[in-house]
Amino acid sequence: MDLRNIKLIISYDGTNYHGWQIQGDRPTIQGIIESKLRMITGEEIRVTASGRTDAGVHAIKQVANFKTRSDLKPLDIKKALNSLLPEDIYIKDAEYVSLDFHARYMARSKTYEYRILNRKEPDIFTRKYHWHVLPPLNIEDMAKALSLIIGTHDFSSFRSSGSSVLSSVRTIFRAELILDQETIGLLKIVMEANGFLRHMVRNIVGTIVQLGYGKIDLSKFREIFALRDRRAAGIKAPAHGLFLIDVRY
Amino acid sequence: MDLRNIKLIISYDGTNYHGWQIQGDRPTIQGIIESKLRMITGEEIRVTASGRTDAGVHAIKQVANFKTRSDLKPLDIKKALNSLLPEDIYIKDAEYVSLDFHARYMARSKTYEYRILNRKEPDIFTRKYHWHVLPPLNIEDMAKALSLIIGTHDFSSFRSSGSSVLSSVRTIFRAELILDQETIGLLKIVMEANGFLRHMVRNIVGTIVQLGYGKIDLSKFREIFALRDRRAAGIKAPAHGLFLIDVRY
Repeated sequence: MDLRNIKLIISYDGTNYHGWQIQGDRPTIQGIIESKLRMITGEEIRVTASGRTDAGVHAIKQVANFKTRSDLKPLDIKKALNSLLPEDIYIKDAEYVSLDFHARYMARSKTYEYRILNRKEPDIFTRKYHWHVLPPLNIEDMAKALSLIIGTHDFSSFRSSGSSVLSSVRTIFRAELILDQETIGLLKIVMEANGFLRHMVRNIVGTIVQLGYGKIDLSKFREIFALRDRRAAGIKAPAHGLFLIDVRY
Repeated sequence: MDLRNIKLIISYDGTNYHGWQIQGDRPTIQGIIESKLRMITGEEIRVTASGRTDAGVHAIKQVANFKTRSDLKPLDIKKALNSLLPEDIYIKDAEYVSLDFHARYMARSKTYEYRILNRKEPDIFTRKYHWHVLPPLNIEDMAKALSLIIGTHDFSSFRSSGSSVLSSVRTIFRAELILDQETIGLLKIVMEANGFLRHMVRNIVGTIVQLGYGKIDLSKFREIFALRDRRAAGIKAPAHGLFLIDVRY
């Protein structure tokens, strides 16, 4: 068979994984999918995602691609994968794409959603999918802070302390706070950008939550943002509230 | 201190427990709550629930009571318990009740909800809280079957095969099928009765699901119900779709 390029739409519950990317013997989403593709195609296959997600982070829509000489149709690969994968990873779709499609390099934007449960009573059934924040949050201030990060900025203040990518300039297309209509106290912070630095969403959310319960004010938030220094920012929100929800090409 | 009677409202995720009732060294909801009450009060305390829930069954609202000579106020006991209990058990409320209150004997009705996800695509994030049924279900027939069980009947056909209680007559006050407005394909079967035989809800749901995908028809369902013989009924729905949602006194 000729070489084919297959695009996958994947959702996963990150609770039991050390993130997307293969890391030795630790269970990772990439590692498990590649091992199942090996069983299905007999080939050593490398799957490229739109980006890594960290340990504990979830995906409602992750996009990945891989090249294969197998003559299995994408729909058959989807079915075979879903029958072999554990119940916390699901292939929503599989389709042929042109050979030059690259899930990471060609992504125009990625959208993350961060879920916060802001009330006294926990929700034990969704506890692995939100950050439970007890002090009452000032939603208005949080929304204002989010509006400040929209546009093209240097996000050095919110990058991971160990990160070493060359540029820390990113463009945020959308940053908003949504009150869930169903669950009392559930807030969703949604950010769409042309790219995110490592831990950027969690560092922004952590700092904005500190603003929400009054540990810092809006002028302090502006100052932190302008300083371009990771040490200035607030806490990092925990991984289990974070979802990759969309990737656009 | 005089003897006091305290009523607890408890919610729990049954996934990691062998049900409510103490069973040797296995983790059970009752066992864990009693061990924490021992730490808090210094007394050997026996907690009585409205009824046992089986291994894997959840509770949004379970009611229990216990007697103590501790002078700790109910609210302090609630706080102390919640700080000691694992994150899959939560005490929603605690209050003094009269000494003759008994969570089991005085319950007038209990309400169970059974969740079924009826669509092709799984929902990996709620997978531990519903039964994923792939074949399309005939909702209308299922609702008709549910209407047949309302009232006072002998439920021998839907009792547990190993069960040996004297009477298998129960009164069902409410039995309905609800289509969830939020999640596509999510059905909820809600039943309120003056009592349930062991596995009764799961046996009814399993049989009604078989009716829903056409394995049996309504006249066959009527026949099974009338036979008063467990061997006549269909499959038992899995435990993880079942929630105790209310107890009335």
